[in-house]
Amino acid sequence: MTALAYIEDNKQRFLEELFELLRIPSVSADSKFKSDVQRAAEYLKGKFEEAGVDSVEIKPTDGHPIVYAEKILSEELPTVLVYGHYDVQPADPYDLWDTPPFEPTVRDERIYARGSSDDKGQMYMHIKAFEALTSTSELPCNVKFMIEGEEEVGSEHLAQFVKSNKELLKADVILISDTGIINNDNPSITVGLRGLTYVEVEVTGPNRDLHSGMYGGAVANPINVLCEMITSLKDESGHITIPGFYDRVAELTQAERSEMAKAPFDLGQYRDELEIDEEFGEKGYTTLERTGIRPTLDVNGIWGGYTGEGAKTVLPSKAYAKISMRLVPNQVSSEITDLFTEHFNKIAPKSVKVEVRPHHGGEPAVIPTDSLAYQAAKDAFIEAWDKEPIPMREGGSIPIVALFQEELGLDSMLLGFGLDEDAIHSPNESYGLFNYYKGIETITLFYKHFAAKHKQQ
Amino acid sequence: MTALAYIEDNKQRFLEELFELLRIPSVSADSKFKSDVQRAAEYLKGKFEEAGVDSVEIKPTDGHPIVYAEKILSEELPTVLVYGHYDVQPADPYDLWDTPPFEPTVRDERIYARGSSDDKGQMYMHIKAFEALTSTSELPCNVKFMIEGEEEVGSEHLAQFVKSNKELLKADVILISDTGIINNDNPSITVGLRGLTYVEVEVTGPNRDLHSGMYGGAVANPINVLCEMITSLKDESGHITIPGFYDRVAELTQAERSEMAKAPFDLGQYRDELEIDEEFGEKGYTTLERTGIRPTLDVNGIWGGYTGEGAKTVLPSKAYAKISMRLVPNQVSSEITDLFTEHFNKIAPKSVKVEVRPHHGGEPAVIPTDSLAYQAAKDAFIEAWDKEPIPMREGGSIPIVALFQEELGLDSMLLGFGLDEDAIHSPNESYGLFNYYKGIETITLFYKHFAAKHKQQ
Repeated sequence: MTALAYIEDNKQRFLEELFELLRIPSVSADSKFKSDVQRAAEYLKGKFEEAGVDSVEIKPTDGHPIVYAEKILSEELPTVLVYGHYDVQPADPYDLWDTPPFEPTVRDERIYARGSSDDKGQMYMHIKAFEALTSTSELPCNVKFMIEGEEEVGSEHLAQFVKSNKELLKADVILISDTGIINNDNPSITVGLRGLTYVEVEVTGPNRDLHSGMYGGAVANPINVLCEMITSLKDESGHITIPGFYDRVAELTQAERSEMAKAPFDLGQYRDELEIDEEFGEKGYTTLERTGIRPTLDVNGIWGGYTGEGAKTVLPSKAYAKISMRLVPNQVSSEITDLFTEHFNKIAPKSVKVEVRPHHGGEPAVIPTDSLAYQAAKDAFIEAWDKEPIPMREGGSIPIVALFQEELGLDSMLLGFGLDEDAIHSPNESYGLFNYYKGIETITLFYKHFAAKHKQQ
Repeated sequence: MTALAYIEDNKQRFLEELFELLRIPSVSADSKFKSDVQRAAEYLKGKFEEAGVDSVEIKPTDGHPIVYAEKILSEELPTVLVYGHYDVQPADPYDLWDTPPFEPTVRDERIYARGSSDDKGQMYMHIKAFEALTSTSELPCNVKFMIEGEEEVGSEHLAQFVKSNKELLKADVILISDTGIINNDNPSITVGLRGLTYVEVEVTGPNRDLHSGMYGGAVANPINVLCEMITSLKDESGHITIPGFYDRVAELTQAERSEMAKAPFDLGQYRDELEIDEEFGEKGYTTLERTGIRPTLDVNGIWGGYTGEGAKTVLPSKAYAKISMRLVPNQVSSEITDLFTEHFNKIAPKSVKVEVRPHHGGEPAVIPTDSLAYQAAKDAFIEAWDKEPIPMREGGSIPIVALFQEELGLDSMLLGFGLDEDAIHSPNESYGLFNYYKGIETITLFYKHFAAKHKQQ
């Protein structure tokens, strides 16, 4: 039996196993789910054993553990290091989910659950492709798996693990499925990713909540001040005003921009899908450029004062916001954090006190298209999808791509199969059944082409 | 026995009865406390009966009920209509209270509890003053009580009740204790109140929460947009930019402003007490003017996106704010609501949709100082406090004052005894024992002086 036939024969079980993983609420950001995160790691350990690895270990870190597994066939063969993550984003607001986030359900050929796409569904495809190859004796490469539980909180302890295990992690390429394709008719490969700086800010006015009637107009209101400070971070053209913010931004040539503009993209459909009358972004750039090659600043959360039912006339003591900046090559996350912090303190009026607390960050990355791995991925797409994949720059961040380049000297191959409609990080996250199975197939074929090209080299 | 001696003899019981009332969490803004609000009304009914009224009734409305009680001695005597409220502000955030908000505690001669000052403590003084007068046969006036349960949500059903019961509510003056004095060394009487317009705004960007990496920079973020819109509502001088907002504002003469400036006020102490380095307000006005004679705009609450622990990279679909405006004579609440709504819709960029939902409003008021009631109150203060009270304009709103003027043709006498440090609407609201007892005494003396002046007239 071939590996592809094995996949076909085991489709139902492959889905049931993913469902079991999706039922574990492994939310890494929230400490109350700590034991669930551990449970997800243990579940994966069992599945790796069943899939035929030589060894698998749950490696503790100071945060959530890393699941490491490997199968080494021969020193002669190339080695693929698969990276993925088993932790998920928080699922709230729960009341916006049509079915509970941790009770996976199939509707209209899509799997609805938190993590169905990001990244449990995409990560689990790798374990099943590996199982198909080993079970049919078709595995043509050595394989190592490093599956972490802290991607959604900035992979805080992964860097230390990578630095301490350079020998263990030696490989020829890193394979990651945590990105998307344009759509099922236009498969694509992500060749660029944005970096990330994420901070929480706190603005304090008076030392206690005040009655807005008695004090309003005479004492700075920290919510109003926070709004003013946030507003001043961008000018009317959508340009970020933090001094030095754009200093390192790599500008693309007109030729590169023209090449990008060839990707199929329908602005009308984009607006319709999001139900917006008009998109908004930095003047002088197209929508694809705004998410692909330009840095941005977004408020991800804001809160302060009375937010319950009805009216309360409070002039609050404090207001808060979570603010993130997406970075492009060659911006450096820690530098941008420092620039932001300095600027935010500087623009604070004397009537308030501010505090900036940095969360995790990550570096932007560009993936070369002339590598063996890229060519192998291209051939795998052509064989499985009957179409040549389009190279695309994506707006999201996978900070570990830069880490792997720096620490292991390895490029990452971003072989992701998600769609925009997966609504990752949102209520009703989902993943197409078609994408799940087609992904397993494409990954399986990637190994074949990668080993063959390696041999020819 | 005199009424004042009766008060002295019953101090402990007067306090225990107030405590029982404070233990009932009669939060009118939150429907989950509905039965507690009803329970507070029933408790008052019992206390009115014990205090010796002719009759007392719980009058249902479409919202929370009104407790109405009266004692009519003779048609010859003047009639005092006492207004107060038994509902309280929401107590959250609960974790900022040193002792639970609905478990009254005395510390440092102050009663700590939600509603201890606003308005259960101040309202209950009237029932006890009445009891002291009836029990000693010293009551010199007819008395009517109208105690409502919706003051903190805009007295929504009071207007209808007043309009339908003009005959029942006929009186010579309305007496209200829901304001404050400068401090215990400088008693004062409130002669001006600001009005209120309160709205909730909702800004919608895309139709669902998005991944800020994939969409950030290309789609309008409703939090950023809301911040920009809020910021634009004031200019750098703290002046409100809504067209027409100041059109009706009554400007004071230099002489009136000079008179106001004579009130004792220490800006250094004000800053120290609030732990702020600098106050903030409309340029060209002093702190007392900013709260006394100028309209303002404050954000009372804001929320949107991810506000939990850790980091979530969401570009949210919606952002919300509660915004209130304090109004001065002769601004009209409904007009300002309309001006705000029109302006807010106008400044919304095409990339979002906005909705403005008006909450309750209230009209500003000015109280004449040449009335019998004011003179009686002044004499009561001189007798009880040994000091002449200072006429003061306050920043807060008691919208029903304007309603009473309009519907009943009656001026209100604002005989309040609260202090700034009462921290009403805040965690750790409190009310001084001194103020509670001295208030009962002053109210008792008010009746005496009011009846005497009425007779002389």
